[in-house]
Amino acid sequence: MLAQNILEELKKIVGKENVLTSKEDMIAYSFDATAAMPEVKPDVVVMPENKEQIVEIVKLAGQHKIPIITRGAGTNLSGGTIPIKNGIVLSMLKLDKIIEIDAENLTARVQPGLIIQKLNDAVAPYGLMYPPDPGTVTTATMGGSVSECSGGLRGLKYGVTKDYIMGLEVVMADGSVIRTGGKTVKNVSGYDLTKLFTGAEGTLGIITEITVKLIPAPKYRRSMLAIFDDIDKAGNTIADIISNKVIPATLEIMDNVTIRTVENYAKIGLPVEAEAILILEVDGNIEQIVINEYETVQKICKDNGAVEIKLAQSDKERDAVFAARRAALPALAQVRPTTVLEDATVPRSKIPQMLKALKEIAKKYNLQIGTFGHAGDGNLHPTILTDESDKEEMERVEKAVDEIFKIAIELGGTLSGEHGIGMAKAKYMEWEFGKEGVEVMKKIKDALDPDHILNPGKMFGGN
Amino acid sequence: MLAQNILEELKKIVGKENVLTSKEDMIAYSFDATAAMPEVKPDVVVMPENKEQIVEIVKLAGQHKIPIITRGAGTNLSGGTIPIKNGIVLSMLKLDKIIEIDAENLTARVQPGLIIQKLNDAVAPYGLMYPPDPGTVTTATMGGSVSECSGGLRGLKYGVTKDYIMGLEVVMADGSVIRTGGKTVKNVSGYDLTKLFTGAEGTLGIITEITVKLIPAPKYRRSMLAIFDDIDKAGNTIADIISNKVIPATLEIMDNVTIRTVENYAKIGLPVEAEAILILEVDGNIEQIVINEYETVQKICKDNGAVEIKLAQSDKERDAVFAARRAALPALAQVRPTTVLEDATVPRSKIPQMLKALKEIAKKYNLQIGTFGHAGDGNLHPTILTDESDKEEMERVEKAVDEIFKIAIELGGTLSGEHGIGMAKAKYMEWEFGKEGVEVMKKIKDALDPDHILNPGKMFGGN
Repeated sequence: MLAQNILEELKKIVGKENVLTSKEDMIAYSFDATAAMPEVKPDVVVMPENKEQIVEIVKLAGQHKIPIITRGAGTNLSGGTIPIKNGIVLSMLKLDKIIEIDAENLTARVQPGLIIQKLNDAVAPYGLMYPPDPGTVTTATMGGSVSECSGGLRGLKYGVTKDYIMGLEVVMADGSVIRTGGKTVKNVSGYDLTKLFTGAEGTLGIITEITVKLIPAPKYRRSMLAIFDDIDKAGNTIADIISNKVIPATLEIMDNVTIRTVENYAKIGLPVEAEAILILEVDGNIEQIVINEYETVQKICKDNGAVEIKLAQSDKERDAVFAARRAALPALAQVRPTTVLEDATVPRSKIPQMLKALKEIAKKYNLQIGTFGHAGDGNLHPTILTDESDKEEMERVEKAVDEIFKIAIELGGTLSGEHGIGMAKAKYMEWEFGKEGVEVMKKIKDALDPDHILNPGKMFGGN
Repeated sequence: MLAQNILEELKKIVGKENVLTSKEDMIAYSFDATAAMPEVKPDVVVMPENKEQIVEIVKLAGQHKIPIITRGAGTNLSGGTIPIKNGIVLSMLKLDKIIEIDAENLTARVQPGLIIQKLNDAVAPYGLMYPPDPGTVTTATMGGSVSECSGGLRGLKYGVTKDYIMGLEVVMADGSVIRTGGKTVKNVSGYDLTKLFTGAEGTLGIITEITVKLIPAPKYRRSMLAIFDDIDKAGNTIADIISNKVIPATLEIMDNVTIRTVENYAKIGLPVEAEAILILEVDGNIEQIVINEYETVQKICKDNGAVEIKLAQSDKERDAVFAARRAALPALAQVRPTTVLEDATVPRSKIPQMLKALKEIAKKYNLQIGTFGHAGDGNLHPTILTDESDKEEMERVEKAVDEIFKIAIELGGTLSGEHGIGMAKAKYMEWEFGKEGVEVMKKIKDALDPDHILNPGKMFGGN
């Protein structure tokens, strides 16, 4: 519990209407979108309206060594926004403005509480787009997606969040405010702090402003759904597309478990007997190049034994295909009480091996695992359908998860392609980076936040 | 001077043939490609042949607090590889192997002493390319270009070095070895150390292995040279091309001073009366799209009052155009004894303002300034032709340089687009980042290299 005088100070800083303390509110901020995590209630939720207030809050928290858990929409999937012990949840939802759209330099400046989709809506009239496209694009905030370095459905061709972050304004743990990067496409002055804060999960500073790169929106696109009776054939198709040097905007996979579940949930006519489907989209600014790529991709699917290829003949059909993919997680989440979603990522050529390994792990531990995800960039989402209240099963789940990460790393992969480490994967960090690598990261954390006030317990565990 | 026993230790580690101490050798390593810098001789040059030797050297240096200045080919332009006091120059030229080309995953792993061009030569048979293309591509090393985060002629469309570095192996100041990143195109595990070491100028660790991203080499290209009687018209042309959403692979500018000097030096038929020329190249994998962009660019040049547009009708003509651009610096360097080359960078839309400001600064301080560079990405190279031995003129040069950076930052730009900070620009760092921003960088330096053994005096000045 925070002392009453600290609550009073917080109310002075942001106004009492922006300080939440009711039990119901604290429960609402004790979890995020991550399953099977401990739920810890904060002492207070504070909703600042500007940077100056954030500086004062940080200074107050620093004085009293109170943890600050910065939070956007809470859609993250690694327990990155759950308190590990009391403290202040700093909700950024009231800092939600677009400060500037600079169509000449193809940049925008936004506040961290802005919903990603709203940025895209605002730049669309200029013929521009902000490519990062996580599944939660209509609810997640810019600040959250920068802090977690979100990926999404367009990552294969367009890259992930960090590829579009040009500059930041950050409040440091000592209350100082710094600006990193800027509007120049080239910038090698000093250390690349912009990239350091991107994906740092709120552990190094509080982002208060973001300058993003925009790109011309592609004028043409073609989508399709390819059906396979064997998941290996789908895996080989992916590898062949990439090595044929076609880079689709989207190249998603869903396995049989996922297909059946989505169909059951959404009734959109998916082939429930299929062992795997690929959802593919190519795009570009010249119609002919898009058509050429479309045909190449179809041919590769056929050569790899696709049973059927459904071409989306209209925007409506295209949207239906994508809706199926976006329904994967909510659909799987309906099957059983707990949905453990991972994002182990491997080099693209290792996708067939990883798919095979996931099948074997499901069998070995007698678990229901649905796999879907951004297969084109090696970023799979094996999703274990389970029940937190079943202790014996959860032990098997834990072993399966360990094995998934072990194999991903053996294949030259990584613990996280786009969901971050948070609390959920902190224990695996040394597997990927060794003791020495984690030590380097901890030294940076200690240097910039010596009292561990900023989102403690994330990335490295401990406090 | 190093104690004799330390020299003996070094010889034991790398073999005496890999330890240089002659006065001539020390002179050769007392400078790099940067003009008007103090020349400081190291105590010794060591040429390790593998990572294990580097670990031992670092441990030895750490024990005795001896500075280590890691060096590739010494082509850097910000005094980044000049010792500030004695110490060990660690030459990486013997670690020059290509470890792996992985055409399936579009990656390569190389050692830091490899010449950039050799990587491109090796991946060309696979139809691949490594896009970063600094002017010194045939002499600069991979390690140097990663440490300085080099840009180059293709930066506008293809980005700079950091966009292609996927993973690193790094020897830290305490002799520990870490691996960052890897072969996955998505990776958000922990802090982005890969990006932190890229452009860190050898101040945070010693890079011993580099994993790079490769891309399919474009099959078609078209080049041209556009001539203007007014530099403002050239500036407006650049802004118009970008806002028309054409992204040329190359969009370079040369002003009248540079044109005259290059023509005088290389006799290649440049229009010496022109106030500015633009060198443009569009490329891609579909011929029609390349032709469309080519025509759009021509139209924009004409609409902005280009006096003449010369289309390169053959590879030979194209190479002549590019040779002119690559000759800019060597040609300017012939005019007077000292060539102070800057790389102030502004948002693309501010190019016309920056060009105007440079003209005024030249006039105000009565200096000869040739300006050329990567105009498309806002990265200009104003080059002051002067004479170090003329004290009075050098004072004017210094004032002019101060003013160039002041204006670049006022226009929303940065101290360095691609040459780094090194010694040359350390004093300006607070202008761009404020005291607080520099403080954050220094904290990271202190955390990872508490004794300031690694390339001291760079980026922040001091020791």
